[in-house]
Amino acid sequence: MSQLNALHQAPATSPEREAYYARISSNNLRPLWTNLANLSKPEPVPATKPVVWRYEEARALLMEAVPLISVEEAERRVLNLANPGLLPRPQITNSLMGGLQLVLPGEIAPAHRHTASALRFVIESEGAYTAVNGEKTEMRPGDFVITPCWNWHDHGNETDKPVIWLDVLDVPLVSLLDAAFTESYPEDRQFVQRPSGDSLARYGSGLLPVNYSGSAVTSPIFNYPYARTRDALETMRRVEEWDPSHGLKLQFVNPTNGQFAMATIGTFMQLLPKGFAGERYRSTDATVFSVIEGSGQTVVSGTDGVDVVMTWGPKDIFVVPAWSWHRHEVLGSDDAVLFSASDRPVQQTFGLWREDRANR
Amino acid sequence: MSQLNALHQAPATSPEREAYYARISSNNLRPLWTNLANLSKPEPVPATKPVVWRYEEARALLMEAVPLISVEEAERRVLNLANPGLLPRPQITNSLMGGLQLVLPGEIAPAHRHTASALRFVIESEGAYTAVNGEKTEMRPGDFVITPCWNWHDHGNETDKPVIWLDVLDVPLVSLLDAAFTESYPEDRQFVQRPSGDSLARYGSGLLPVNYSGSAVTSPIFNYPYARTRDALETMRRVEEWDPSHGLKLQFVNPTNGQFAMATIGTFMQLLPKGFAGERYRSTDATVFSVIEGSGQTVVSGTDGVDVVMTWGPKDIFVVPAWSWHRHEVLGSDDAVLFSASDRPVQQTFGLWREDRANR
Amino acid sequence: MSQLNALHQAPATSPEREAYYARISSNNLRPLWTNLANLSKPEPVPATKPVVWRYEEARALLMEAVPLISVEEAERRVLNLANPGLLPRPQITNSLMGGLQLVLPGEIAPAHRHTASALRFVIESEGAYTAVNGEKTEMRPGDFVITPCWNWHDHGNETDKPVIWLDVLDVPLVSLLDAAFTESYPEDRQFVQRPSGDSLARYGSGLLPVNYSGSAVTSPIFNYPYARTRDALETMRRVEEWDPSHGLKLQFVNPTNGQFAMATIGTFMQLLPKGFAGERYRSTDATVFSVIEGSGQTVVSGTDGVDVVMTWGPKDIFVVPAWSWHRHEVLGSDDAVLFSASDRPVQQTFGLWREDRANR
Amino acid sequence: MSQLNALHQAPATSPEREAYYARISSNNLRPLWTNLANLSKPEPVPATKPVVWRYEEARALLMEAVPLISVEEAERRVLNLANPGLLPRPQITNSLMGGLQLVLPGEIAPAHRHTASALRFVIESEGAYTAVNGEKTEMRPGDFVITPCWNWHDHGNETDKPVIWLDVLDVPLVSLLDAAFTESYPEDRQFVQRPSGDSLARYGSGLLPVNYSGSAVTSPIFNYPYARTRDALETMRRVEEWDPSHGLKLQFVNPTNGQFAMATIGTFMQLLPKGFAGERYRSTDATVFSVIEGSGQTVVSGTDGVDVVMTWGPKDIFVVPAWSWHRHEVLGSDDAVLFSASDRPVQQTFGLWREDRANR
Repeated sequence: MSQLNALHQAPATSPEREAYYARISSNNLRPLWTNLANLSKPEPVPATKPVVWRYEEARALLMEAVPLISVEEAERRVLNLANPGLLPRPQITNSLMGGLQLVLPGEIAPAHRHTASALRFVIESEGAYTAVNGEKTEMRPGDFVITPCWNWHDHGNETDKPVIWLDVLDVPLVSLLDAAFTESYPEDRQFVQRPSGDSLARYGSGLLPVNYSGSAVTSPIFNYPYARTRDALETMRRVEEWDPSHGLKLQFVNPTNGQFAMATIGTFMQLLPKGFAGERYRSTDATVFSVIEGSGQTVVSGTDGVDVVMTWGPKDIFVVPAWSWHRHEVLGSDDAVLFSASDRPVQQTFGLWREDRANR
Repeated sequence: MSQLNALHQAPATSPEREAYYARISSNNLRPLWTNLANLSKPEPVPATKPVVWRYEEARALLMEAVPLISVEEAERRVLNLANPGLLPRPQITNSLMGGLQLVLPGEIAPAHRHTASALRFVIESEGAYTAVNGEKTEMRPGDFVITPCWNWHDHGNETDKPVIWLDVLDVPLVSLLDAAFTESYPEDRQFVQRPSGDSLARYGSGLLPVNYSGSAVTSPIFNYPYARTRDALETMRRVEEWDPSHGLKLQFVNPTNGQFAMATIGTFMQLLPKGFAGERYRSTDATVFSVIEGSGQTVVSGTDGVDVVMTWGPKDIFVVPAWSWHRHEVLGSDDAVLFSASDRPVQQTFGLWREDRANR
Repeated sequence: MSQLNALHQAPATSPEREAYYARISSNNLRPLWTNLANLSKPEPVPATKPVVWRYEEARALLMEAVPLISVEEAERRVLNLANPGLLPRPQITNSLMGGLQLVLPGEIAPAHRHTASALRFVIESEGAYTAVNGEKTEMRPGDFVITPCWNWHDHGNETDKPVIWLDVLDVPLVSLLDAAFTESYPEDRQFVQRPSGDSLARYGSGLLPVNYSGSAVTSPIFNYPYARTRDALETMRRVEEWDPSHGLKLQFVNPTNGQFAMATIGTFMQLLPKGFAGERYRSTDATVFSVIEGSGQTVVSGTDGVDVVMTWGPKDIFVVPAWSWHRHEVLGSDDAVLFSASDRPVQQTFGLWREDRANR
Repeated sequence: MSQLNALHQAPATSPEREAYYARISSNNLRPLWTNLANLSKPEPVPATKPVVWRYEEARALLMEAVPLISVEEAERRVLNLANPGLLPRPQITNSLMGGLQLVLPGEIAPAHRHTASALRFVIESEGAYTAVNGEKTEMRPGDFVITPCWNWHDHGNETDKPVIWLDVLDVPLVSLLDAAFTESYPEDRQFVQRPSGDSLARYGSGLLPVNYSGSAVTSPIFNYPYARTRDALETMRRVEEWDPSHGLKLQFVNPTNGQFAMATIGTFMQLLPKGFAGERYRSTDATVFSVIEGSGQTVVSGTDGVDVVMTWGPKDIFVVPAWSWHRHEVLGSDDAVLFSASDRPVQQTFGLWREDRANR
């Protein structure tokens, strides 16, 4: 047995070893064994921290940006949700970027496209729009909107209220792969060819066009309206099958293949009934939660034995790091509804995803 | 049109803006627009450099490690191939780790497992072994051996010559996902239950066990012997269908699903005939090449207009960065055979992979 | 070239040949060549005939069965739609059985299951039910209901009006495969565990339960309500993309994999706008049409050069044989909506399906 | 409960009922209930009989055909293996046609193609050829050769010995679907573009051409040589994992997707060691066996309680009907090797396939 080797701690240094390391360095070689213990921890030890963004505070700060920078100059008026454990990288988890985006009445976030995929989870809106590939969709609170890899998209606000949504992108993954392309559209707005609702009708009604063959990578539906999602949750809850940790939890899917709606970011919606006190759970995908309805708290057990309690209410955003025991509790007199997003599809595709329900 | 915005260059700073950035910082918020131009380059601008490792030099340095560190202490006596563009991360490309591993006669690299997947491409060996999940396989030069995600594996050398192979692992991807687990086997060697060749016979002969259902993630064949690969290349070349850039290029596949042999690392074998002068080509997957037979040069066009010429001979290893125009030429009187590896399966799974054959 | 051989016509007979055929017969051998021309026609020559069933006539005859046989005695009070070209086999096409089923107020068609898959396309109903695997669904005109392979199902009518639907089953395929099993449920009605609408909410709203893994063979949705289908057609038609032969034609899909809702029977819904005069078309799947809205005619070109004109109105059922040129015309002042069913998924799975749009 | 209804036996007849049946008949309607018991047996009751064809007898009769009919006149000199339970249809099972085909030295079976798929299992040959889509392959005893749907194929014999093989085709399925097309090639032999062995090297060596995308329906390998198959069996048997009913049983697969080599006909190879006495087994796919090596007997339990014992030796062909209990025994001093074919892929695709190992 080899318990006390470089898998567990770096071998001691010595003048001879140091000299050797220096010598091979100029040949573009490095010893693995000095780094192996760091690479070989028994379990994930994520740098990502559990953290909550209070919506009212974040919103107020976002509004302060308005006089400081125009959407024309900013291209997108977004404040990144920067996880304090990952600085200086302004990422919300190790594999995802998150942000709050603001478009004021009359503003346009001009059309562009990129190979990174983005989701927009609508927090405040009374009908501002996102246009994707020639179709406009109105954005309402709780709507889950996708702007997929290399699809033209622009956003605009023709209402009289600000629109604010949560952005989540797979930028860290695309960067790791050195596969990031970006292009500006020649106009601020793309030409709209299809009425609102066309995609949902065409692909999301239990039918598909005859001989349809689409991309396997992303759903042809790009707006999953909350009205529909909420109705589904209400119908389903009549069968009292509550998961002890998750309540009633569903994942958004691409109806053309039954896979996740986005190939790189899994998205979920869950209903936690009034009084729900969930059991501990952990999985390898760090998860971003956005609260739609209700209030509660999520308790994350730190590796140091100290629990972090994140209380949350409507519109707040919080993060549970990878492989961290946590449990949700609903407080107050209402049911809670949580949207969430993680890199689960990537992990499942490669056989890396694990979950664990045993208490500790 | 919005050509001169944050997509293209960071907005100018000002005292007001700086004050604002400082203020939001304590709320775990950061402006996107100061970082957007960096994230939004029109095309990938990889940090990875084109670089060659001369085998004889690297081998000599690897041998110098023997008196400095035992395999017991090192767990694995590996020198990482450290791309100079990626330091201090000791990675061969942005998404892959590479290394040269040495096991001397009588040594054992003890059994362990990890969620990172590894390939071993054999450079020097007269029959040293790798054991995977209870089956031992002999390693011969040119053999492509897989130790998949979370499979027990150990290596040993019962011959009288050193064995050296190229390691390539998906560690950066697994780290990005915070999904790295590692475990030591209770013994140095795992118990061997199956004779050598069992997997290849069982899964790689055009048949599968009745009602077989295996993992979609990795091939049940874990040694693709060079003897077989080389024979296939010789048979195929009788039809004169040479790709202008790649010669005769094949990818290793999992015979249970026709996908890449490894879900996260694509592996290829190509024959370039004597006199081959390939046309320029680029793709988004940075590629590690290992030369089996023949000599030649690979010319990589830098973004600065300066060509980098990498000459190579048998056993040398070289890297072509992502999205970099390059061409291969065979020099000397022999055909060349190149093994290569990249993150292509990941990119193709997510619709990110691109290639380009137009000259420039 | 071998144009005048047994591929084209049976070889002449002779006393020696006849004697030989007799001799081998007792060894369970038969000459292929006497049968080859029959098996080797250049194109399909279907025995199936184009035929219309007028709903009012068929309904009247179905009602006449009521005093003659109870549903208890009949198990199912069904009149098979017997294609005159296929007699004595009571099939609607060469690969499908069709029937009209009647359940009167207060009656129950008792619970059973079989390996043949069945669809029920609702013609007349004000809320009679089908129960599948513990969930009841109300049946409304235009609803497409599935009772999949080996799923318990029963039907009942707790309203005060008769319910009549079109049955289509894959019995001929299951019989060819010698794979028909049938079982009676111990009670007339199965125990209902889930409220109506549960399946549609759970699987048909753009979401799936987390970690869902279902059968690939049939949709977990078993009622595709016409209200939803019709809404989708109305939304889609705003983009004026009419197929010259099919109008606006969609196929029902299993939202867990994007394949046909049933693995063996393809089902379609198409809108033909007022005034539509379709172009000629043919495909290898003989198709059963059921008219929901509108009136028109379908002209089928016989191989003898004589056209067969089938006029149709609401609730009529008609058949277009395989590989027969045909065209649809809408007559009268309303749009037409047609449901249809065929063995297309089987043909597509095995690479046999062909279509042809060239006129002749 | 409804045990004594039309599901179990046809309702009694009466003058009123008969008059009604006659009346609806002219409207192309038939009662289901008079036929329902026949369609609804609890289990399959196959018409297919267990039967053996002694090769020496069949071969002698096949040779007698030579002076009676030329291959030019016959197009294919084939004697169908006609299951006595299925007459007058000359089929070997309910869903498959079988035949023995003879090509004499100097003869050509001219090039044609059809949508039915065929396999050729070689019994006697010293190198006669089959050509498929521009590639010729030599046929040796035990080779499994495919001529897929709509692929040009011809056979010839340039040796000095007759070649005889077993043909198995999916003609009954293609006929059920009315999807049979046939075409003659303009010449007797197709133009050969690829050397023998090209397909096996290109697709069957653990690699595939880069960016390969082939048909999902059939394997691009069209000859699975027995030499390779037999080697695989010998290697695998070193691990003593014998199935109690099947010995060591494998299925031929398409290496581009891991599915059956043919989409409609499953093919298997199994090794039964000397002294093997198998346990009873049944499955829903009637199976054609062709003996390559060894002798033995297969005992099929009739539904009437009487066992049918089929003894077999090298080159004999025998059939086990669907859902019939049977067991194999090896007699004599040699191992036995059996090739077999059935419609299992069709049944598995549609969720219909069942197997049963319980004794009775």
